[in-house]
Amino acid sequence: SSTVPASAPPMREAAAARMPSLAHREVARALADKAEARLAAQLMPSAVPADVAEFRNGAGNAVGTLDVRHGAPDSPIDFMLQSSLHCKVPNGAIDITSILVFLNASTDAPHFLLEFIQGSPTSMVVILDLLPRKDLALHPEYIEKYYQNTQLDKQRENIEELPQTRPYRSTSLFVRSACSPTAVSVIIDCGQGGESILEEIVCGHLASVAKGVLQIWLDNCTGNTSEMEQVERDIMVKRDQVVRLKSIEVDLTANLPRMFGPEVSGRVITEIRRAFGVQEA
Amino acid sequence: SSTVPASAPPMREAAAARMPSLAHREVARALADKAEARLAAQLMPSAVPADVAEFRNGAGNAVGTLDVRHGAPDSPIDFMLQSSLHCKVPNGAIDITSILVFLNASTDAPHFLLEFIQGSPTSMVVILDLLPRKDLALHPEYIEKYYQNTQLDKQRENIEELPQTRPYRSTSLFVRSACSPTAVSVIIDCGQGGESILEEIVCGHLASVAKGVLQIWLDNCTGNTSEMEQVERDIMVKRDQVVRLKSIEVDLTANLPRMFGPEVSGRVITEIRRAFGVQEA
Repeated sequence: SSTVPASAPPMREAAAARMPSLAHREVARALADKAEARLAAQLMPSAVPADVAEFRNGAGNAVGTLDVRHGAPDSPIDFMLQSSLHCKVPNGAIDITSILVFLNASTDAPHFLLEFIQGSPTSMVVILDLLPRKDLALHPEYIEKYYQNTQLDKQRENIEELPQTRPYRSTSLFVRSACSPTAVSVIIDCGQGGESILEEIVCGHLASVAKGVLQIWLDNCTGNTSEMEQVERDIMVKRDQVVRLKSIEVDLTANLPRMFGPEVSGRVITEIRRAFGVQEA
Repeated sequence: SSTVPASAPPMREAAAARMPSLAHREVARALADKAEARLAAQLMPSAVPADVAEFRNGAGNAVGTLDVRHGAPDSPIDFMLQSSLHCKVPNGAIDITSILVFLNASTDAPHFLLEFIQGSPTSMVVILDLLPRKDLALHPEYIEKYYQNTQLDKQRENIEELPQTRPYRSTSLFVRSACSPTAVSVIIDCGQGGESILEEIVCGHLASVAKGVLQIWLDNCTGNTSEMEQVERDIMVKRDQVVRLKSIEVDLTANLPRMFGPEVSGRVITEIRRAFGVQEA
């Protein structure tokens, strides 16, 4: 109200949403730590302005964080992006946590992708994949190298064997097409009263599977450059560009304007575009 | 026995398995008829020798049929293949029915693929897809043209909404990679005593979905040639070749030797390879 003295903490500050602790967020945190520890000098320091590293909406019901670390020169890493979004809604809250590590054109190894989308205390969507860089139907040797020999599919089986999971299909046919045949894409739904069961699954089965996939990626995808003919590399770069543009369009930035309004989301999307190296469509 | 007179019908003939009538086979038959009626002059007459058109194993417990019709000159059809396999096993029988219509390099339109694999009177696997000819992650416009605008995904939803279906994942990562994001790949399992429920689903829901997919394919994929740059067409031809080789290897011919022995299956596989235009690996 207008009677509040100027020296008092502004109402907005007091009412502002805080990023709540959440089991899935802890799991993502541990994974990001693991990746950062392993990649170490391959990553440059954080590269986002303070008002993007943490941001809120005017209404005070939404808070987000974004961190982007570019790959060091001569590393196969293009960038590592972490983000967390929390938005109170009438019946609860939506929490979205993402970790992406994209590689550059020195290698054809898959990118790492993790997304947790939690719309209630008892259910969440998990997308976890090593995103292929090549047309798999044209390159069976690529399937063999990165997916078959690494036994990645066992991780998918581990999570899908839970009775609480069912397949999740992105409404975007493009997103489905960009994923590998071993992608984890599931809804974990523990039903009414299942808060503690979900937490148990997240900290147990899910954490273990996500750790397993990250380990496979760290061990098989971050160490080597790939020999390719120039025309092959050109196709890969073009393919990467399409995947990046589409990912931003249908996924990463889809929820931001609704949650944070045009000004804040514009700022954040600009940074995400910068990380992805793609221009406004 | 050696006492049977030469004029009596040979034992083998009398004991030979016959292709039993089966709801899923009727549905496939109706679809093939529909496709043949529509394609009409685009198809040449059948092109398989009599001992491949119908074949049996020595033990008399397995029977198969294969029909291949090549596309007429100047048609976009490469070939249409239909096959039915029936094999008695200790606990029942395995019945596999396939319809494939593959297009040639004059068009980039998807191939048509249908497979029913029935291992019991109460459950079966269905694979039904328009197989993409291009790398979908590199060609979002291809997704839009053949999959989005045709609303193909609704057919998948129609069958997956049945409580008796659950996703079927091929053990071959290649097969999964070759399918479109709208592919129907399900197990229909009606449980103990569910014979009549399965039959009802096959003749109702499944027949309707398969007919819908075939209609979309006939309307959108068989009429036009596609303008392409030569390099694009070369990649498509190479991709097609890999898909054909792999399909034969992991799918079409995988069960034949076990069911029919080396001699008969060798003869049949030779014809399938000829239809696919691929050499022995």
